[in-house]
Amino acid sequence: MITPKTAPGFNEYLPAEQRMFDHLVSLIRTMYERHGFTPLETPALELAQVLLAKEGGETAKQVYRFMKGDTDLALRFDLTVPLARYVAEHYHDLAFPFRRYQIQEAWRAEKAQAGRYRQFYQCDIDILGNIGTTADADILLTTAATFKALGLGRSVMHISNRKIFVGFLASLKLSEQSVEILRIIDRMAKQSADKTKKDLSVLGLPAAAIAQIISIVNAQGLESLRSLTISNTLFQEGLAELTELDSLLRAGGLTAEEYVIDLGIVRGLDYYTGMVFETLLVDKPEAGSMAGGGRYDNLVGHYRKEPVAGVGASIGISRLFNALKDSLKKGPATPAQALIIVFSDALLPYCFKTASTLRAQGINVMIYPGSDKPGKQMAYANKIGVPFVVLCGEEEAKNETLTIKNMASGDQQTMKIKEAVTYLAKSL
Amino acid sequence: MITPKTAPGFNEYLPAEQRMFDHLVSLIRTMYERHGFTPLETPALELAQVLLAKEGGETAKQVYRFMKGDTDLALRFDLTVPLARYVAEHYHDLAFPFRRYQIQEAWRAEKAQAGRYRQFYQCDIDILGNIGTTADADILLTTAATFKALGLGRSVMHISNRKIFVGFLASLKLSEQSVEILRIIDRMAKQSADKTKKDLSVLGLPAAAIAQIISIVNAQGLESLRSLTISNTLFQEGLAELTELDSLLRAGGLTAEEYVIDLGIVRGLDYYTGMVFETLLVDKPEAGSMAGGGRYDNLVGHYRKEPVAGVGASIGISRLFNALKDSLKKGPATPAQALIIVFSDALLPYCFKTASTLRAQGINVMIYPGSDKPGKQMAYANKIGVPFVVLCGEEEAKNETLTIKNMASGDQQTMKIKEAVTYLAKSL
Repeated sequence: MITPKTAPGFNEYLPAEQRMFDHLVSLIRTMYERHGFTPLETPALELAQVLLAKEGGETAKQVYRFMKGDTDLALRFDLTVPLARYVAEHYHDLAFPFRRYQIQEAWRAEKAQAGRYRQFYQCDIDILGNIGTTADADILLTTAATFKALGLGRSVMHISNRKIFVGFLASLKLSEQSVEILRIIDRMAKQSADKTKKDLSVLGLPAAAIAQIISIVNAQGLESLRSLTISNTLFQEGLAELTELDSLLRAGGLTAEEYVIDLGIVRGLDYYTGMVFETLLVDKPEAGSMAGGGRYDNLVGHYRKEPVAGVGASIGISRLFNALKDSLKKGPATPAQALIIVFSDALLPYCFKTASTLRAQGINVMIYPGSDKPGKQMAYANKIGVPFVVLCGEEEAKNETLTIKNMASGDQQTMKIKEAVTYLAKSL
Repeated sequence: MITPKTAPGFNEYLPAEQRMFDHLVSLIRTMYERHGFTPLETPALELAQVLLAKEGGETAKQVYRFMKGDTDLALRFDLTVPLARYVAEHYHDLAFPFRRYQIQEAWRAEKAQAGRYRQFYQCDIDILGNIGTTADADILLTTAATFKALGLGRSVMHISNRKIFVGFLASLKLSEQSVEILRIIDRMAKQSADKTKKDLSVLGLPAAAIAQIISIVNAQGLESLRSLTISNTLFQEGLAELTELDSLLRAGGLTAEEYVIDLGIVRGLDYYTGMVFETLLVDKPEAGSMAGGGRYDNLVGHYRKEPVAGVGASIGISRLFNALKDSLKKGPATPAQALIIVFSDALLPYCFKTASTLRAQGINVMIYPGSDKPGKQMAYANKIGVPFVVLCGEEEAKNETLTIKNMASGDQQTMKIKEAVTYLAKSL
């Protein structure tokens, strides 16, 4: 006898939770399509040499990589690298601008942490091609609308533009130290102002530069950024992009409560080149960023000579769900809307006829599949949370009626099959 | 520069095909829920020792198995073994009878064949617990209704019951040779009657037994099976089950065109113990079985002492889709129902306002994300197959109107935004 257990660091859900999770994924899919993104899936396994073209360091160590025969394979660790490979491979078969969404699992052998697992779903959108700020705005509007549809509480997008800091640091001739400086900025929200100043001075930055860095990160809105009158071209370009983005987000219906300009947002240092953002839950900021993304100059650098620019966002739905699931109201453990109680084998044909009629009208129906006593069948109905049971007894079969019991209220009514269809459809 | 390519034996779809595939999966999901099955997902990776508790031989060789650190892992090669592990692991948290569906990928390093790949989707349903023929009937009705909903042409379920042959062979004291005999029966449909007779006589079977085996396999319907008057208990039990099943399928609305009793159906020899079936496409029988399943006495034998019986079916949706996709009408490469053409940056806020209004009414809208000339944007609309384009020009912005072009008919009309919502909703 072998102990049945999942591998360490992997999780799965019981039926009621699985249904909640699926419901969220289905909302995300609907909202992504609402915003004109087309679905895409790529294989879980890729050639390791292709998948790991870029990655070194920590991520590469976490990848599940192995030989099968002569083939060096790896499980995807995100949805971005497979997108790059897909776009480069099928470049001439795709219409650009290419807008795709992808909702699939990724695998990383990370240290086990509460709410984080070694297999997790990501929900990515990207717009690729010769694109403008329109694309950045549409990515953000899609993400905001999707979070709203999920109904998991208020969320806020924190938006920055990488060009602002890169330009500013260039103007101070600090470009060589920009990675270290951006790392410190990334930590700013989590530490004291004094600690930040100390970290920056350890890098040997002059006090004036440190003061300016801090005032840029703390700038409240676009007006205060403009008032800094920094003349660097890239800085001004980033500011102009943020200004245009802001006007498009307003035109798209976002309010000041739904996003903030936050120059403290940094994200992947060797990847993003323009707008970057993160989505935080207002009532659960400690859970960290639940979505994020930004603009990149070239997605396919390792696979194609001609660059392909893009902008994208990713919702970490597994992480989001694991952070919130215990606070969500649990639904039934079944999609069935009605359970047909079976009183005897002789009545089974009437049960099947009833099920067939109701199902044809779009009602989700389960027939009790065993020959347990009616009391046990009712207890089962309660346990799985089915909202209605349908009693097909002898009287009902003779009169071509059904007795329908509302499990929440306990109300019970006998009616003709046709009326039952209307009654159930109305109640669900 | 690394050549971007998928691993050998793996496939992926271009957007129009991906959308067709997703549509089929969504229909299957809807029909499975319509019949009261609850969704389930299990991790792609399992502990190899747990996943391969039973498998030896060919399947084990095809499994993707590898070490990560000290952990011996394997990718699932079907959805049945993970179900067994799940049910055994969560036994006390599940309500029985347990009806689940699972639509996920499986991986096998099979030799590459046309239309068969190393990653493929399976769509499984199972009913587990203390169940009767009701469950067998419901599994078959669900499968038949699902194939009907898929709209891929007429399909027929070929149904048998393993007990009939097992009982019959026992009555002839041929139980020890039953595996070899069933293998020959499995081949019968594909070879001549003479070859079958020869194969059976090579096993040393008496001529009378051979004649009876052939007459059972060729029996047309239940009546002719009954007329064989074989008195073995197991044979009679199988025949009684088939008879009850037949009456429930009729009560559930299936016609004689939708299923046949076919004793030539064998399937997995060390697994099924009662009803077995396969679904064939009437117009493409050469493509082989597109779904199949049956009844088993114990799913969890390797993980639990107490047996869990069940009945299940699996639709090989990847195989089905690959067999048929070239004969299906291709839809658009986008879920967008309308593309907003952008005439100038100054008009962008009006474009975003329009998109936001239409999306809020449930219309899938794409805003052209670049600053290409309108002619190029129209060419893009044609290429991706979006049914409507929305022109937000200066006149339109001034008058708060939209000009909507039906891409199929070429008709173009200018109207107020509110009217446009009604017009688009009606046309889609």
